[in-house]
Amino acid sequence: MTKAEIQLVRSLADKRARTEHGLFVAEGAKLIGELCASHLRIRKIFALEGVFEGPATETVTPREMERLTLLKTPNNSLALVEIPHSTLRISDLAGRLTLALDNVQNPGNMGTIIRLADWFGIRDIVCSEETADCFNPKVVQATMGAILRVRVHYVDLPHRLAQAAAAGIPVYGTFLEGENIYESPLTPDGILVMGNEGRGIGPDAARTVNRKLLIPPYPADRRGSESLNVAMATGIVCAEFRRRALRPAIG
Amino acid sequence: MTKAEIQLVRSLADKRARTEHGLFVAEGAKLIGELCASHLRIRKIFALEGVFEGPATETVTPREMERLTLLKTPNNSLALVEIPHSTLRISDLAGRLTLALDNVQNPGNMGTIIRLADWFGIRDIVCSEETADCFNPKVVQATMGAILRVRVHYVDLPHRLAQAAAAGIPVYGTFLEGENIYESPLTPDGILVMGNEGRGIGPDAARTVNRKLLIPPYPADRRGSESLNVAMATGIVCAEFRRRALRPAIG
Repeated sequence: MTKAEIQLVRSLADKRARTEHGLFVAEGAKLIGELCASHLRIRKIFALEGVFEGPATETVTPREMERLTLLKTPNNSLALVEIPHSTLRISDLAGRLTLALDNVQNPGNMGTIIRLADWFGIRDIVCSEETADCFNPKVVQATMGAILRVRVHYVDLPHRLAQAAAAGIPVYGTFLEGENIYESPLTPDGILVMGNEGRGIGPDAARTVNRKLLIPPYPADRRGSESLNVAMATGIVCAEFRRRALRPAIG
Repeated sequence: MTKAEIQLVRSLADKRARTEHGLFVAEGAKLIGELCASHLRIRKIFALEGVFEGPATETVTPREMERLTLLKTPNNSLALVEIPHSTLRISDLAGRLTLALDNVQNPGNMGTIIRLADWFGIRDIVCSEETADCFNPKVVQATMGAILRVRVHYVDLPHRLAQAAAAGIPVYGTFLEGENIYESPLTPDGILVMGNEGRGIGPDAARTVNRKLLIPPYPADRRGSESLNVAMATGIVCAEFRRRALRPAIG
């Protein structure tokens, strides 16, 4: 393990370096095992003795692993992985449910949402450029491997949503003035826009939403300062879309 | 501010000291403001100049606040609050929805679940003794004030659940072999048991569950290693209970 390698790995805590090198870091044998079986390309693995073997693997000591790790607690292995290139056409959005994130900032929320998307069989997440980076080490670990199955795209979100809406794809979003989701018609396909933790969906993205939804509190007339975390709201809305799709007769 | 006070505050990071002194710590003007308006009793407030005034308030410098805080970043105020004494009778559980947590360990999950309970109008959470302490500083902050409205009880959970089941209260829980929640009858009242992050509901609590539920993946026949985080699963199940209660005609 060279000094340059240590510097490279540690630099990948920052998005700028990840973009420059086209690499991100994944830690732990379970995640790296899933990576090896995925379409992603591993550049190099650093592992404690006996954890991984192969031409791209270098055995390191626990002390060296402590110098490499981007997490609070070092793992038994760490991989340098190539950031996949993804393209998304508007036609890819037709006929299925897609998530769109407008400036979600918290890496924990980002990781939870990617994991949720995987659970609900959502293949793509379209994000505004300001949304938390999905290759941030905290996000990668929080997704528990879902990052290998769900594709995350960073785009000019309002522009892309406007194109989708113009192509006849329903664009949903949650708003305080939205219609009770349980009384709204929901299509099995469409784009579901979720917004920033503090400010919600920004005005440019909001203009493209043609179906405004609300998750009702309980009891329905309760007023208060309570709010749902954005990841939780995403889960509850996705569950309702999937419930309808599984039981179309009940709507 | 005395040395003894600093020691006391800092000791309250640990559950043992919280139990011994009957006190917990809340930080930040928004949370402390809500506390002042709640039924909880504040023993003392330490605040930067101009933030709070009153007989139980002591003004401290930013440097002193840094010595007091139990969080990563010090806030503008910190309160010592008396842990409320709560009792819960089986008759309190009749006619409404209650959450039960069997050994949920992660403070972040605990905080999210308390916030969820508040959103869904759930008044009580019954926990096994091993469940994360709701007065852990991380949990208190993560609840965003919901800890003031939702009552959390630590009890011999399997024993209490068995009593409730014997009293005719439906006891629900999520299991891999459960029935699809969207095809199951759900009562507006009952106890919903959620389990540990890794091992799920323990065998003693599981024996008391008389209605086993499953959140189906999508598509319904998808197999994989994916799983839902316990807080997310709690949110999705509570949303379905409340949806049914809001729209009883549709079931």
